[in-house]
Amino acid sequence: MCQLLAMNCNTPTDMRFSFSGFSQRAGNTGDHTDGWGIAFFEGKGLRHFVDYEQATTSPIAELIRHYAIKSKNVIAHIRKATQGRVLLQNCHPFVRELWGMNWVFAHNGNLQDFQPKLHAQFHPVGDTDSELAFCWLMQELAKSHAGLPSVHELSLSLQELAQRISPHGTFNFLLSNGQALWAHATTDLHYIERQHPFTTAHLSDQDLSLDFSTCTTAQDKVCIIATAPLTSNEQWTRLPPQSLHVFQEGQLLLRLPPPPNAGTANPAPLAAS
Amino acid sequence: MCQLLAMNCNTPTDMRFSFSGFSQRAGNTGDHTDGWGIAFFEGKGLRHFVDYEQATTSPIAELIRHYAIKSKNVIAHIRKATQGRVLLQNCHPFVRELWGMNWVFAHNGNLQDFQPKLHAQFHPVGDTDSELAFCWLMQELAKSHAGLPSVHELSLSLQELAQRISPHGTFNFLLSNGQALWAHATTDLHYIERQHPFTTAHLSDQDLSLDFSTCTTAQDKVCIIATAPLTSNEQWTRLPPQSLHVFQEGQLLLRLPPPPNAGTANPAPLAAS
Repeated sequence: MCQLLAMNCNTPTDMRFSFSGFSQRAGNTGDHTDGWGIAFFEGKGLRHFVDYEQATTSPIAELIRHYAIKSKNVIAHIRKATQGRVLLQNCHPFVRELWGMNWVFAHNGNLQDFQPKLHAQFHPVGDTDSELAFCWLMQELAKSHAGLPSVHELSLSLQELAQRISPHGTFNFLLSNGQALWAHATTDLHYIERQHPFTTAHLSDQDLSLDFSTCTTAQDKVCIIATAPLTSNEQWTRLPPQSLHVFQEGQLLLRLPPPPNAGTANPAPLAAS
Repeated sequence: MCQLLAMNCNTPTDMRFSFSGFSQRAGNTGDHTDGWGIAFFEGKGLRHFVDYEQATTSPIAELIRHYAIKSKNVIAHIRKATQGRVLLQNCHPFVRELWGMNWVFAHNGNLQDFQPKLHAQFHPVGDTDSELAFCWLMQELAKSHAGLPSVHELSLSLQELAQRISPHGTFNFLLSNGQALWAHATTDLHYIERQHPFTTAHLSDQDLSLDFSTCTTAQDKVCIIATAPLTSNEQWTRLPPQSLHVFQEGQLLLRLPPPPNAGTANPAPLAAS
């Protein structure tokens, strides 16, 4: 399995503290050593870094731990390969363009017997179940909406689509288009909302504390989403199985509960021919 | 205008020497200070770095000058904005996926009255004429071929498509899918083929020399393509206007001359409705 990390804020924020703790799980406090990646939105633009070296020793990860890249939406991933070889094209997050926007996706889990029909414009470059799921999600979003719909409409579509993949296995994922951040859980995904008054947080994976009150304003709002809580002295909320949470401007915007038939053992076919 | 740089090799090769000289043009020996970018293929995977800071001072460019990333196909760009603001989404090279492959594109020039109809899956994220041209090229390639054609067929399609854009202005471009590297010239583009016996090259933009015989084998073949020659003591070949050159495995594979009607002042419409 892999580990996921995301940040959604109302003002461009530097994620070095969270990434520093998170990347320890790639060899020091965890065994997620089969590559890593991170994507930072800056407006519509994107900085996308991937590496098949482990995040504790990768020179690019070292740069990310020390260079303050400020962003309102970030998705990161450290990989422990289940499907797909240890190759650059199999490192998450994956990126595609749809409706003139970048879309970024990372997945934690393992999908079995998952062979959706890809009949449109999105095809995997690598050989992971994760990129395949992302391509299918993008294909179905493109089919369902002629152009970019509202975040609310997108969320309803995504929750419906996620429920068609979930019966194939563990499908914790993070998705962002720079406007909002979607987090779908089937097993482990936690989040925390930080806002004024900011306090001091202590990392679980590293002996490092940060007093957020020294680097924030009273207006700042930040949500962090991670497979397992990153700090030891804060209260993280676990996402219920099959729920989709939508974050925008540093706040939880929507919480879509699992639909009544979630987790059915006999999913509908993923695409008609 | 901007400046282009590319490398095509038969064995993964480190491009620090060329990039070091090239990046001096972003402020030291040139005024291309409106961002930069570089993309390295590693098999089907891609490392893609863009920054709107100038390449002489960007921390990411500093990493690239010192971290030996080995690749068989690299495209780099330093920007002097003509169309499109100084923003991350306007930094070249641009990336799209087609047929399960990454495609990387960078452009030097300025296109006028260029408003192709984009009716399929590729849409610009930023607001440059360059990304628009790339999206149109990808759209037309996707329409012309049901799946990935041979490099020869792709080259014929690209030369035909390039001639439909060229009448709109300067259209020097570099394109790669990791298999081959295409270079189209309308004004300034030069290349050099290096192979055994390797000699010492001296950069034009920096007081730096490298004896390639110390870091190569007799089998290595490397082509470098750049807007202006990067070294002062080697013989570079200028690409004739409207020609398309195709590089593969470190050698010039194909040279497609301008078609008879190249540069016509009345181009055919770019897309039927």
